[in-house]
Amino acid sequence: MKIRIGIFGYGNLGRGVELAVRQNADMETVAVFTRRDPSTLKTVTDLPVYAADAVADFRDKIDVMILCGGSATDLPVQTPALAEMFNVVDSFDTHAKIPQHYDAVNAAAEKGKTTALISVGWDPGMFSLNRLYAASILPAGQDYTFWGKGVSQGHSDAVRRIEGVKNAKQYTIPVPAALESVRGGETPALTTREKHTRECFVVAEDGADTARIEREIVTMPNYFADYDTTVHFISEEEFLRDHSGIPHGGFVVRVGKTGAAEENTHVVEYSLKLDSNPEFTASVLVAYARAAARLANEKQYGCKTVFDIPPAYLSPVSGEELRRTCL
Amino acid sequence: MKIRIGIFGYGNLGRGVELAVRQNADMETVAVFTRRDPSTLKTVTDLPVYAADAVADFRDKIDVMILCGGSATDLPVQTPALAEMFNVVDSFDTHAKIPQHYDAVNAAAEKGKTTALISVGWDPGMFSLNRLYAASILPAGQDYTFWGKGVSQGHSDAVRRIEGVKNAKQYTIPVPAALESVRGGETPALTTREKHTRECFVVAEDGADTARIEREIVTMPNYFADYDTTVHFISEEEFLRDHSGIPHGGFVVRVGKTGAAEENTHVVEYSLKLDSNPEFTASVLVAYARAAARLANEKQYGCKTVFDIPPAYLSPVSGEELRRTCL
Repeated sequence: MKIRIGIFGYGNLGRGVELAVRQNADMETVAVFTRRDPSTLKTVTDLPVYAADAVADFRDKIDVMILCGGSATDLPVQTPALAEMFNVVDSFDTHAKIPQHYDAVNAAAEKGKTTALISVGWDPGMFSLNRLYAASILPAGQDYTFWGKGVSQGHSDAVRRIEGVKNAKQYTIPVPAALESVRGGETPALTTREKHTRECFVVAEDGADTARIEREIVTMPNYFADYDTTVHFISEEEFLRDHSGIPHGGFVVRVGKTGAAEENTHVVEYSLKLDSNPEFTASVLVAYARAAARLANEKQYGCKTVFDIPPAYLSPVSGEELRRTCL
Repeated sequence: MKIRIGIFGYGNLGRGVELAVRQNADMETVAVFTRRDPSTLKTVTDLPVYAADAVADFRDKIDVMILCGGSATDLPVQTPALAEMFNVVDSFDTHAKIPQHYDAVNAAAEKGKTTALISVGWDPGMFSLNRLYAASILPAGQDYTFWGKGVSQGHSDAVRRIEGVKNAKQYTIPVPAALESVRGGETPALTTREKHTRECFVVAEDGADTARIEREIVTMPNYFADYDTTVHFISEEEFLRDHSGIPHGGFVVRVGKTGAAEENTHVVEYSLKLDSNPEFTASVLVAYARAAARLANEKQYGCKTVFDIPPAYLSPVSGEELRRTCL
């Protein structure tokens, strides 16, 4: 019997989950839940769509609910609420608030006797895993995480809120010299400015003061002031042609030392180059949904993260076959 | 209380384990076991050395035995024998024979109520993990594993067995064009010859026929015949100066597709650049020894591989702190 998936929230991420489930023969999506009027929502593959309020009726019809809302306001409420009723997987990515999210979700999952996996994706997620593995193997060492080249949704939104900006996209870009230094086995102390640059492509409203817009961007506290930022004003046509995608990626590098006098250097690098950030994140969520279903079958309830999940649980392939073909 | 480690076999790998344990404050090495005369063996940090035959006396004094013998003849015998008495970790790396090794070790570990982790290292080991994670996340895709640039012990040995060869080292080198193609998101079908080249540095005996030696190398079945191989004859002095190290490394790349028409490409890459192959392998063994100790405490007995181990078990850091600092 297939693992029955529910999708809670249908934006880019929910759409990505819909498509990713299709690539896994042991799963099927049985329902999409939305806070919009369900009759107005048509999914890529014409899935049944229900009102979010109706979700409790599906307790026996869904094995794992994949939450596809945002980390700012949706998931802190939705994940604990749904974890009382369903095995859940979310992509909560506000790093500083993970401990309190964990506590809230864990209480709900223990109450509901469900398995809840939080902060699944690539950062947090695959990047975190690689930080953990490399640090555990090479305790004498230093970690570096670089993001990009890719679109930062939060920074793009911040630019779009500036008066006179019609549309905007912000790319985060690792500084090549910093990345090369680390890859070469050096362990430099890098400032924020030395690790990443930011590049903005802006469509200005007709007659807008582009000098003021540029100044407002590059001096914006938290978002841009600590970075070297380049601003390009482009036409709407060019924007739609060249900047419609949501690519992202990045690098996790650990430089570690071993030997009697720590004379040997090892460089461990994990990198992602993603055409579609939400589709890749969705693919990670779907693989972990398989793990959630297995853990729930074993009555391993409560809140867990990628750190707690045996890698084999992500795969539809048996342990025996994995040892034979993949080890 | 510290995790008490035993080292069974003291070559490059055993020495690496001795040094790696020192980098982990929650562990200590309590004994080294050797088939040589123990009185002739002095370890880097002057560890107590015992005869291999005496190992049974240490059942209550060692939490995890790390096996540092070879895969060809040592581990198939030693790991099952020791798994009846100790929690063990080995680096068995004959991929084709992993299933039968697993069965033998599992029977012993179940009989002895011990936890046995086999095929721990980087390939099998970290590379296997990365193949598994990436394939589980991106089921529509293709895997590529490249090795090098690094020293292949087996190929170096094969060259040294040729008449007239005094010393030799063989480097396996990924073909740059193949690696770049895959990194660029292409999924070429690559022959053995298209993936790796082999480079040999040979010190010939005085008066040896170097043309014959070169011909014997490049035509050697299984080892060299399917590759483009370059042979350099060098002086013993140059050999000792430039080719004493045991560097290695490699790349695991998965190119995967997502989207309604699989129109989006994702490239996941894991790479290692290691100054010392045995010291890095030893560091992986030591991190997994921590996991073995924890699993044994939980009475999770039997044979396991890296696929079965929750990543958090490798770390000395608590789950709570990992979620706060590493996720």
